[in-house]
Amino acid sequence: MPIFQAAQLRRLATEIFVAAGAPAEEATLVSELLVKSNLAGHDSHGVIRVIQYVKAIEQGNIRPGAKIKVVHETRSSALLRGNWGFGQVVAKRAMEIGIQKAKESSVGTVCAFDLYHVGRLADYTLLAAKNNMIGIAMANARKSVAPYGGSEPILSTGPISYAFPTGKENLLVLDIATSVCAEGKVRVKLHSGEELPDGYIIDKEGNPSNNPADLYEGGAILPLGGDSVGYKGFGLGLAVEVLSGILSSAGCAYESGKKGNGVFLQAIDIGSFMFVDEFKSRIDDLIRTVKSSRPRPGFKEITIPGEPELRTESMRSEEGIYVPERTWEEIEGIAKRMNLNLSTIISRS
Amino acid sequence: MPIFQAAQLRRLATEIFVAAGAPAEEATLVSELLVKSNLAGHDSHGVIRVIQYVKAIEQGNIRPGAKIKVVHETRSSALLRGNWGFGQVVAKRAMEIGIQKAKESSVGTVCAFDLYHVGRLADYTLLAAKNNMIGIAMANARKSVAPYGGSEPILSTGPISYAFPTGKENLLVLDIATSVCAEGKVRVKLHSGEELPDGYIIDKEGNPSNNPADLYEGGAILPLGGDSVGYKGFGLGLAVEVLSGILSSAGCAYESGKKGNGVFLQAIDIGSFMFVDEFKSRIDDLIRTVKSSRPRPGFKEITIPGEPELRTESMRSEEGIYVPERTWEEIEGIAKRMNLNLSTIISRS
Repeated sequence: MPIFQAAQLRRLATEIFVAAGAPAEEATLVSELLVKSNLAGHDSHGVIRVIQYVKAIEQGNIRPGAKIKVVHETRSSALLRGNWGFGQVVAKRAMEIGIQKAKESSVGTVCAFDLYHVGRLADYTLLAAKNNMIGIAMANARKSVAPYGGSEPILSTGPISYAFPTGKENLLVLDIATSVCAEGKVRVKLHSGEELPDGYIIDKEGNPSNNPADLYEGGAILPLGGDSVGYKGFGLGLAVEVLSGILSSAGCAYESGKKGNGVFLQAIDIGSFMFVDEFKSRIDDLIRTVKSSRPRPGFKEITIPGEPELRTESMRSEEGIYVPERTWEEIEGIAKRMNLNLSTIISRS
Repeated sequence: MPIFQAAQLRRLATEIFVAAGAPAEEATLVSELLVKSNLAGHDSHGVIRVIQYVKAIEQGNIRPGAKIKVVHETRSSALLRGNWGFGQVVAKRAMEIGIQKAKESSVGTVCAFDLYHVGRLADYTLLAAKNNMIGIAMANARKSVAPYGGSEPILSTGPISYAFPTGKENLLVLDIATSVCAEGKVRVKLHSGEELPDGYIIDKEGNPSNNPADLYEGGAILPLGGDSVGYKGFGLGLAVEVLSGILSSAGCAYESGKKGNGVFLQAIDIGSFMFVDEFKSRIDDLIRTVKSSRPRPGFKEITIPGEPELRTESMRSEEGIYVPERTWEEIEGIAKRMNLNLSTIISRS
């Protein structure tokens, strides 16, 4: 039974997290965001993570219900210690604080450390956009990316996200790694037995490789821009590392024992600069201008960041979410171990 | 006489701008920053711009001595109307206001519109870094970059700069276009009669081209990431466009009659998040870790953003700055037209 409705997967993940010791509210949030990733087409950040998170809870790397501590705070900034709660719970709280501070002080900037995997950054920047604000987010994690010209991983994939409210058009949301690709994409190729395109990774000797396995045997992902202008992606990766790894107190990607994410979040109150309605109508105009411009030979259309995800979401909401056999078996195993009646949970409406 | 000391060029540019009607203080600042670009090796942003700026003054596109107006202001933000002053003068003032606001409110965010060319963004982010703050800057200009999959220019090269203070290491400063290359690089190739590398530009039909002239005949520069992952550079370019073109009220790159730069500047007070000394020592550690990691086959060493510029500066401070014959002749022509005694200015010590 490899295809599920989003609601089924949400229910299942929630019950598993609750059984693993998570408060209902946290279990619901984390499950909602994981399934949202599946809907958006980013399966690497979807229910496959249930397996990892349950293990992390059992090993004490996630502490469900952890109390988030505001370590330091000013009118427009805050530093949060997550105490190893779910990354999603801590990051959402961090952006909520950022939005509140932006309402009072134009721009709210919040960093957080000691938190587990936050999932997709777009979830938090969209929270700002839905509040008529500009959302910015960056995160660091364990090392997997080589500096430009280097052969060893030193930085993380350094994701960065921007979200902007719009008028009649769909929200404009960007969520990208500053490396050529996210680690999850290499893992997907590894599992499917496919080769990587040129210019994605190097092996442990620093030589170009198309074999995804080489990444996990001492290799590294290359920074955005590849061999010719990879110093650009490297520079952006360094900036993300400093803001989300150093300024956040989370520690750098290369530090031994590095775990979880460090995050840097910002909410910008548009009204402090211009009328929100005017901002939205200008963004609409930008989006329409881009979309109505002439595609290049070989391209059917021009898509806006966030648009492919929305299309996949609309399709998968209708047709369901495919969960690979192996992933499903592992989730089944977890449910069984926790004495959850999987078929009852799935079939309940 | 094509090689000059920095001081000679600064003197010459200052006298030309003063003769063109600029207040001494503005003439000095603009000349200093132009020559600093030459020293850093970015000749496209160096004294060659004297020609363009003088023309802009004569055509009323730069209004020397323009009064900068604070259109709107909160404790942590400001929106400035430059009234078509020198971009350098307005952007420097904007970052100074940002730094002042960050001192009082943790993060200072300043947008500016109606200003001419600001030159290199690093000049303003470094100002923040020298004040023990993190500096962030973005700018938009006229359209020259195609969206990912598009054949027409819609966005500008969307430069972005980050600068971070350090302890014992050199300041960490990034200043890059979010397109594969800056427009100036294409122009340099055009003037030198050289071809562009693959993946830099497309011609007016949207087909790949190596001929720099194609950019100026309806072609476009490609976003960072090229054909495979150019949606990343495109997304970053859109974010820069929104923050520096829309939020700033400067107008989008594609709007007809677009001139000058729109800017988005931010100063972040490190002390609101952690001890500045600890931050600096961690940045030092990051830089050393990157630099001491193993280079790839084909690379001699790993350089940090800002490092190549420092090396060139040290070399050119010693050996002088080469000004191409054609540029020099045009500057000579301007000096003559303004009744300036060029050889006296140059030879004065």
